Amino acid sequence: MTRLLSREELESELRAIGERQYHDLHPFHKLLHGGKLKRGQVQAWALNRFYYQVSIPKKDLALMARMDDPALRRIWIQRVLDHDGFGESARREEGKVGGIERWLRLTDGLGLDRDYVTSLKGILPATRYAVDSYVNFVSSRSTLEAVASSLTELFAPAIHRERIAGFEAYYAFANDATLSYFRKRLDEAPRDVEFGLQYVLDNARTAEQQQAVIGALRHKAELLWAQLDALHHAYVSPGLIPPGAFVPEDMEPTVYTR
Amino acid sequence: MTRLLSREELESELRAIGERQYHDLHPFHKLLHGGKLKRGQVQAWALNRFYYQVSIPKKDLALMARMDDPALRRIWIQRVLDHDGFGESARREEGKVGGIERWLRLTDGLGLDRDYVTSLKGILPATRYAVDSYVNFVSSRSTLEAVASSLTELFAPAIHRERIAGFEAYYAFANDATLSYFRKRLDEAPRDVEFGLQYVLDNARTAEQQQAVIGALRHKAELLWAQLDALHHAYVSPGLIPPGAFVPEDMEPTVYTR
Repeated sequence: MTRLLSREELESELRAIGERQYHDLHPFHKLLHGGKLKRGQVQAWALNRFYYQVSIPKKDLALMARMDDPALRRIWIQRVLDHDGFGESARREEGKVGGIERWLRLTDGLGLDRDYVTSLKGILPATRYAVDSYVNFVSSRSTLEAVASSLTELFAPAIHRERIAGFEAYYAFANDATLSYFRKRLDEAPRDVEFGLQYVLDNARTAEQQQAVIGALRHKAELLWAQLDALHHAYVSPGLIPPGAFVPEDMEPTVYTR
Repeated sequence: MTRLLSREELESELRAIGERQYHDLHPFHKLLHGGKLKRGQVQAWALNRFYYQVSIPKKDLALMARMDDPALRRIWIQRVLDHDGFGESARREEGKVGGIERWLRLTDGLGLDRDYVTSLKGILPATRYAVDSYVNFVSSRSTLEAVASSLTELFAPAIHRERIAGFEAYYAFANDATLSYFRKRLDEAPRDVEFGLQYVLDNARTAEQQQAVIGALRHKAELLWAQLDALHHAYVSPGLIPPGAFVPEDMEPTVYTR
């Protein structure tokens, strides 16, 4: 029913998803990058996004566990190392600090307690559902679809640059430590995505496979978007914090009555 | 660390979850039951909630597939039959029409096309994530926790009565067909939950088990809440419909620009 696309057409379809629905379009990001958020709202974002950060290596390992080709695993393992880092032995070598630790430097800089952040208490349930949906997707779909779902990194450098500039311009918490995650990703993401894109274009050989990879990237874009919807609803507009979720010091808990 | 609760204390803890965070407290339900929603907003609710409806028998079957006791399965299978019904052979026997078909009578009455509803296109991604999280929870946790997660039915009759009264008072679409799901559940839910509650109170014998069942019911309450948060954000306030989701005829698609 759907015709086979050329390599260029498929790449163009994938890039169109970014144009249409990547989360740089979301109002929450415009507020975040434009300096319009209070400290507590930025805390809520960083706290919730931490669950995404710690889940990334798990989804990459779920994918690698099903890869048959050691050469492919050798390439993909770099992503896990990028996020997990090299631990205490490498603590003095700044380039070997992992993305999860870098994200915790951001939450530190925002005044959040590390034990609270890593406990994952206080994250929005909707954050958990969206992120878990990503891990489940990667765990259960074909390697091709799983790799395709990582291609939102095609669109990430632009948002990271916008974020670094916005944070530096507008927020007192911006410094080398709190920005370190985003600066590092500017180097890592283009390398990762170059491989991922070629892999997808090489391996999506039937019309069905092409539609599957398009669907996979759309699924990924949707779940990034859903995370911001939940943050926006709880902490910006209308500002209804679900019972039990994190309440920043500069906001009041929402009171629900019968 | 946590002491063993008496049977009465455990029941009271479970009921307290309903008091504190059952979704009858959610602003979306107040609008829905108070006649404050436009037709398109009610359509969005019924369309999204349909995904929950079709997933209920799947979670019950995932649970039954791990039950070792035929006597327990004989009781639990009633829930599957309640939702799935008895098909064409029973179409003239109104009591044997399943909950999924009854829900479709509601979406029919709201003017939604059945093929569109059952295609699940247009539901909010956040609906899918929250509901899938429920099916995954029931599929992966202990039978005890899975049964405990069904106990939101303790609180359901009140909300169904409120909904029937509100629909009859305020909405032109209210009639025997569109209300049939809710009226039927008034009979079914108390029977189901009576069994489920006794099962949980009988089988949560250690402090750890008791905390697990409390956690399971809280998890369920959270995912019901998250579904309404997503609807409220998309279709009420601030009214930001995610790219690709259902746009009612009486609303405009949200335009997102860079």
